Amino acid sequence: MDRLELLQTYRAVRAQTTFLADRLAPEDCTAQSMPDASPVKWHLAHTSWFFETFVLTEGPIEHRPFDPAYAYLFNSYYNAIGEQYPRARRGLITRPGLDEVLRFRAHVDTGMERLLHECEDQSLASLAPVIELGINHEEQHQELILTDLKHLLAQNPLAPRYADAPPPEISQPTPLGFVSFAGGLVEVGDANEGGFAFDNERPRHKVWLEPFSVANRLSTCGEYLEFMQDGGYERPELWLSEGWNLCHSRGWTAPLYWKRRDDGWRHFTLTGMRRVDLNEPICHLSLFEADAFARWSGARLPTEAEWECSAVAQGHGEHFAPSPALHPRALRRISPGGQTAGPGEVAGDTLHQMFGDAWEWTASAYLGYPGYRPVEGALGEYNGKFMANQFVLRGGSIATPRRHFRPTYRNFFPADARWQFTGVRLGR
Amino acid sequence: MDRLELLQTYRAVRAQTTFLADRLAPEDCTAQSMPDASPVKWHLAHTSWFFETFVLTEGPIEHRPFDPAYAYLFNSYYNAIGEQYPRARRGLITRPGLDEVLRFRAHVDTGMERLLHECEDQSLASLAPVIELGINHEEQHQELILTDLKHLLAQNPLAPRYADAPPPEISQPTPLGFVSFAGGLVEVGDANEGGFAFDNERPRHKVWLEPFSVANRLSTCGEYLEFMQDGGYERPELWLSEGWNLCHSRGWTAPLYWKRRDDGWRHFTLTGMRRVDLNEPICHLSLFEADAFARWSGARLPTEAEWECSAVAQGHGEHFAPSPALHPRALRRISPGGQTAGPGEVAGDTLHQMFGDAWEWTASAYLGYPGYRPVEGALGEYNGKFMANQFVLRGGSIATPRRHFRPTYRNFFPADARWQFTGVRLGR
Amino acid sequence: MDRLELLQTYRAVRAQTTFLADRLAPEDCTAQSMPDASPVKWHLAHTSWFFETFVLTEGPIEHRPFDPAYAYLFNSYYNAIGEQYPRARRGLITRPGLDEVLRFRAHVDTGMERLLHECEDQSLASLAPVIELGINHEEQHQELILTDLKHLLAQNPLAPRYADAPPPEISQPTPLGFVSFAGGLVEVGDANEGGFAFDNERPRHKVWLEPFSVANRLSTCGEYLEFMQDGGYERPELWLSEGWNLCHSRGWTAPLYWKRRDDGWRHFTLTGMRRVDLNEPICHLSLFEADAFARWSGARLPTEAEWECSAVAQGHGEHFAPSPALHPRALRRISPGGQTAGPGEVAGDTLHQMFGDAWEWTASAYLGYPGYRPVEGALGEYNGKFMANQFVLRGGSIATPRRHFRPTYRNFFPADARWQFTGVRLGR
Amino acid sequence: MDRLELLQTYRAVRAQTTFLADRLAPEDCTAQSMPDASPVKWHLAHTSWFFETFVLTEGPIEHRPFDPAYAYLFNSYYNAIGEQYPRARRGLITRPGLDEVLRFRAHVDTGMERLLHECEDQSLASLAPVIELGINHEEQHQELILTDLKHLLAQNPLAPRYADAPPPEISQPTPLGFVSFAGGLVEVGDANEGGFAFDNERPRHKVWLEPFSVANRLSTCGEYLEFMQDGGYERPELWLSEGWNLCHSRGWTAPLYWKRRDDGWRHFTLTGMRRVDLNEPICHLSLFEADAFARWSGARLPTEAEWECSAVAQGHGEHFAPSPALHPRALRRISPGGQTAGPGEVAGDTLHQMFGDAWEWTASAYLGYPGYRPVEGALGEYNGKFMANQFVLRGGSIATPRRHFRPTYRNFFPADARWQFTGVRLGR
Repeated sequence: MDRLELLQTYRAVRAQTTFLADRLAPEDCTAQSMPDASPVKWHLAHTSWFFETFVLTEGPIEHRPFDPAYAYLFNSYYNAIGEQYPRARRGLITRPGLDEVLRFRAHVDTGMERLLHECEDQSLASLAPVIELGINHEEQHQELILTDLKHLLAQNPLAPRYADAPPPEISQPTPLGFVSFAGGLVEVGDANEGGFAFDNERPRHKVWLEPFSVANRLSTCGEYLEFMQDGGYERPELWLSEGWNLCHSRGWTAPLYWKRRDDGWRHFTLTGMRRVDLNEPICHLSLFEADAFARWSGARLPTEAEWECSAVAQGHGEHFAPSPALHPRALRRISPGGQTAGPGEVAGDTLHQMFGDAWEWTASAYLGYPGYRPVEGALGEYNGKFMANQFVLRGGSIATPRRHFRPTYRNFFPADARWQFTGVRLGR
Repeated sequence: MDRLELLQTYRAVRAQTTFLADRLAPEDCTAQSMPDASPVKWHLAHTSWFFETFVLTEGPIEHRPFDPAYAYLFNSYYNAIGEQYPRARRGLITRPGLDEVLRFRAHVDTGMERLLHECEDQSLASLAPVIELGINHEEQHQELILTDLKHLLAQNPLAPRYADAPPPEISQPTPLGFVSFAGGLVEVGDANEGGFAFDNERPRHKVWLEPFSVANRLSTCGEYLEFMQDGGYERPELWLSEGWNLCHSRGWTAPLYWKRRDDGWRHFTLTGMRRVDLNEPICHLSLFEADAFARWSGARLPTEAEWECSAVAQGHGEHFAPSPALHPRALRRISPGGQTAGPGEVAGDTLHQMFGDAWEWTASAYLGYPGYRPVEGALGEYNGKFMANQFVLRGGSIATPRRHFRPTYRNFFPADARWQFTGVRLGR
Repeated sequence: MDRLELLQTYRAVRAQTTFLADRLAPEDCTAQSMPDASPVKWHLAHTSWFFETFVLTEGPIEHRPFDPAYAYLFNSYYNAIGEQYPRARRGLITRPGLDEVLRFRAHVDTGMERLLHECEDQSLASLAPVIELGINHEEQHQELILTDLKHLLAQNPLAPRYADAPPPEISQPTPLGFVSFAGGLVEVGDANEGGFAFDNERPRHKVWLEPFSVANRLSTCGEYLEFMQDGGYERPELWLSEGWNLCHSRGWTAPLYWKRRDDGWRHFTLTGMRRVDLNEPICHLSLFEADAFARWSGARLPTEAEWECSAVAQGHGEHFAPSPALHPRALRRISPGGQTAGPGEVAGDTLHQMFGDAWEWTASAYLGYPGYRPVEGALGEYNGKFMANQFVLRGGSIATPRRHFRPTYRNFFPADARWQFTGVRLGR
Repeated sequence: MDRLELLQTYRAVRAQTTFLADRLAPEDCTAQSMPDASPVKWHLAHTSWFFETFVLTEGPIEHRPFDPAYAYLFNSYYNAIGEQYPRARRGLITRPGLDEVLRFRAHVDTGMERLLHECEDQSLASLAPVIELGINHEEQHQELILTDLKHLLAQNPLAPRYADAPPPEISQPTPLGFVSFAGGLVEVGDANEGGFAFDNERPRHKVWLEPFSVANRLSTCGEYLEFMQDGGYERPELWLSEGWNLCHSRGWTAPLYWKRRDDGWRHFTLTGMRRVDLNEPICHLSLFEADAFARWSGARLPTEAEWECSAVAQGHGEHFAPSPALHPRALRRISPGGQTAGPGEVAGDTLHQMFGDAWEWTASAYLGYPGYRPVEGALGEYNGKFMANQFVLRGGSIATPRRHFRPTYRNFFPADARWQFTGVRLGR
């Protein structure tokens, strides 16, 4: 990106983060519902800490840190920078309050504006990759703000809403089909042609694929309910051993946020408790549930290379139109005359819902690509040190910023994680 | 109390509770630092829930509950009323926010005002004991607001203050002495002569005491430091077995809130980090530490009957002058001419610091007095069901409302609790 | 005891310990079912370690320790002697094996025989109290051998037997009655008149008692079953708060070792799974269950002073005839002609089953008597350091050696302990 | 295998299992040191349960199960067969004792002899794959007998020996070198040409490999000690995030079984405590330690495909000569004249210690090969359900039965496992 593009993107992304918190009270921004999820206030501060630490403090324009103690408080996991306040106790940091954290954001923004205006071209060239990383980093935290907040609000028996509930949509089922691919020796990973990519998307490399097919859409709540009604959670032969044990020790009998009511299933969403729409994509599944469901379906999860190949082959133009329900929506069907009626419609052999609906669990463990090397220094801790005991997810959810939709993007979470918008696309 | 006295006391106590929260931001009022401690906001709501549940809903004046869901959210432990939101997760209730909880308080206050003005004398007579209990209950929570908040703020590496720090006082040591009592067949417990008392202070009953003596003042930080420097925390022969194990498993090497600095010990107080004053009463000890310290001193903890007898014999007129440091202060010494110079001074055989400085651990397990019966109904759960595996504390701390200072008052906490203002007076 | 009596008692007690293990295989003697219970092999070794450490090593006759490493391995909790192998891992000590431990016992016995024969009178006089303590200590472990082994065998789904099952007895109900006592200023505790007593039974001291009464027999399985069928385990108003929480977190719905079968309740005993006899004493209750049952019965648990007074007043001559079932038996009724037919019969106002059936939970916390001082040195750790968060039990069970039956004996266990033979006698 | 070969292999493997337990006392065979490790007695019984359940009960020759309860007691994890006794409590099963378990083995052996002699060819043909699986299964448990026992004995402060200690060998260092491979499109996995393989080794499939090299030998204790002395355990930049956290929470500062003494490092082996030989292969590392060490070495762990290709290319003829120390030995060096002097010597570009020394952690997560399908029925639970959150190990250790050494063999353990003989070969 050039100077102007950096500046504009920086401003837009920073504004979007603050916008997400705008409708929240200080109380909502402070609490932490589990060690894996962080308070909104922490996300607001940590993303600013990132720019202050890796750009402003390192940069050519003098910058006074807002508060030296923040280096400790808002460092997430960068050991090379120093010790960190314990992750599980982030909800106990009542001060700085929300107001003070917003002042911290403004302080960093002022510094960044100065830097982006005043620093020389040569300096900027060396800082640009870090700034761009910071922007993408902040966008990742925008998604976490929504998923972490959803988890927090779900703990409250009053089922409070993040946003007003839109009127319910009327949906229709879309037949499940499979699209076939020939496989062979393919290339996956970022080709390094100028667009932003995280280091874990590189290097581009060859992979041999046997012929495979993937489903034309995400699996639905209705299909998952069939699995449940067929004893899905009580049949060990469908499960990975660790998943089966977790089911029992944690009492899983439905996706996260689902509650059975006398008249059927409801689930908690960012716009309140809603009746489950059988045609909408199932989400908030662990890898173990997605895998057991796939096995029950006589299918399997795609590998990440299969997913990437199919995404590249089919284009990925169906990005989400913002969902006012803040939840994945059912596909709209092909209109009778065969014309498609806008984004999200089903057509022929197209792969639908590849981006912007729900993250798709893959059968691939999150490991470094052949020849992977993290960058030098503290930023090398960004991705590489998490390459064990996690699975790759592909695509992107309704909470994912649009710029993150690309075939090579590798999201990753532990197999038992359920609080992200995580769904399943079948493969064979 | 008559109608007017009830009304005035109710108003004063309710106002004082809100006053305690006045200087706090919503963030401070929301977080919970451990299962044993509750958020300030929860205390504000629960004390109101108490009046709404036990007085307004039961009373003769029609009252619409502020929100039916609060019956579940803000019930502490009254099983007879219904299920309770899990204690350990109170910090996750971000809504209702602080504002809404203050509206709940106002709603309850309006109801109480109406009831206290309008209900007939006969009704009032039957409700008065419950109202009085509710007032005393709220005062107990005033103390918890301070101790729970102190624990929360102490988790923050920024060591934030609840109140501004007063200038440090200059203190002087006061010699330790013992006052002797003859013992014999004595009576302890509330005599039921009209003043308020909790059910656990009754019935008044006979106890045989051997001759005993108790220290003329609380043990000091200086004395406790000697214990520490003499290897107090490393000498198993000084400790109860369970205490010794806790020392190791929890890593106790000093009282709660103490931090060693290069130039000596500091401790966290509600007015910030302060240098430890060697002459001030030691506090934030567990029963185990108090007991080990007493053994090291060649003494023991008094029993609750001994404490009560000595308090009755000596009067208990030395109530605290409010401590601006929000921490127990050193005794002021007798002035040269022998005149005492106000509250807190040392004179002859007087027992000092019996009330209003720090709670005093006793050697007595918290059990029902002979013939003890809890009241019928849900309020019977107030005290009686906790009579196992706790120890009695006597006196009262700087955080205790003044009306709670009486010789028969029985406070109780588990032996490992350290976040109350808990100290030690030696006995023999 | 004089030299000869010491010698004879030592021999008899040591032989009895080995006898208890005689019918067990090495496997049974090695395993540990929970941290609170120890392997039989460990009991065999630890009781020998006691004599080697406190008598032989200290004594006038030269003694070579069997293996210096045992000082660490078989020290239970005497910090003054040195560090201890972790209690929870005693089941991992497969070597020394059972044979080797029996050789250790023989080695210690040889040393003790020599000492008891050869040492001079003066030396013996100073050692005799320690030897006598060691003998009583070993008898306490005889009881633990049976209770710990029972707990271990109960974990095995094959329900293996320690001893052959005797033919079932036919029992009859005995009416529950209460015996009244006047109370007043009484003396309790060991009078120091020559018989052995533990330090925690002293000093004898005055206690004031209000008039009270205690039940003429232990409560029965039939009575407890009524409590269960009346929702005893589902009614929070009957329970101490901590007990209620334990009920839920541990899933208690019946006494330990009870299993519901289609045709009624069975329980695991040392002679195998047996049908519950409704007339036999209920046992394997926690203090919490005993307390809830008493409350449900409209009664309460006696205090330890009440128990002791009533035991003294009534004599305690009904010691158990050894129970071949290794389980408390139902009372035998008065024969038609009015003659009693031997031990265990019911007569008039007599208190039955005071000793030798099941330990009786009292309402008293285990604390030191007024003026209590542990002995100097390591043996001071025997009793005193456990005086917190335990309750006193009185009487003695079918597993208790006969010499331990005395009115002043204070047994103690945490309120949640259920693996001892612990029952309930009602008081008022 | 034909009938005779099956019979002979069955007999030999069964005899070897019993032989491993021969020198152990019943106590050693009963205890369980952690949930992951099982008692020797359990291994003896479970391997027999396997034949009784999957062969004898299913087979054409009538067979009476030794004890119906064993179906529950000795089922490891086959949900399709029924419920299982809890894994973590296997050490509490003192009965059946060792003798009885040996009788169970004999009972199963008698049944298998009859079946292998008497059943018709057609029946045998269908049973042979299961019998062969049972034989390989039992060999896997032979390795576990040694590793689980080692972990148990290591808990004993007496450091008891499984076997007599051989005299220490004198070793010399061997230079570390790397052997290069061209990569390209290769095939890995079992080719299904008749030899036994587990289902997880299939199907054979294509993989694209970039050029790579692997070390000519395992890394040594001396090299690992350099890592330790260079702050290996204190430098977060060397570690995967989860490994770094484990290091701290579990207090890892050296490989499992290492103890620092004043004169250097010792480690516990099956032949007792021994001085660490700097030239012998490092083992008892977790994946996290192996990975951190590799990173510190400027290298990485090989993938399982790289390992398999290099093993195939180099042959695998250097199987272990039985190590009397029951521990991996140092390589013997090339003799001056260039002649090799027997197994284990170093020559040119050869890959040494590929089999029979220590398992080698790879960088590959344990997942199903493309097209992998577990067999139908209960035996499908053998491997497939563990394909999440584990890493692949290749090669084989001194405890591995010889018939298991093959390039396609896939061992797998969680990344934190350290009680197997697990070491590291560097790759690039």
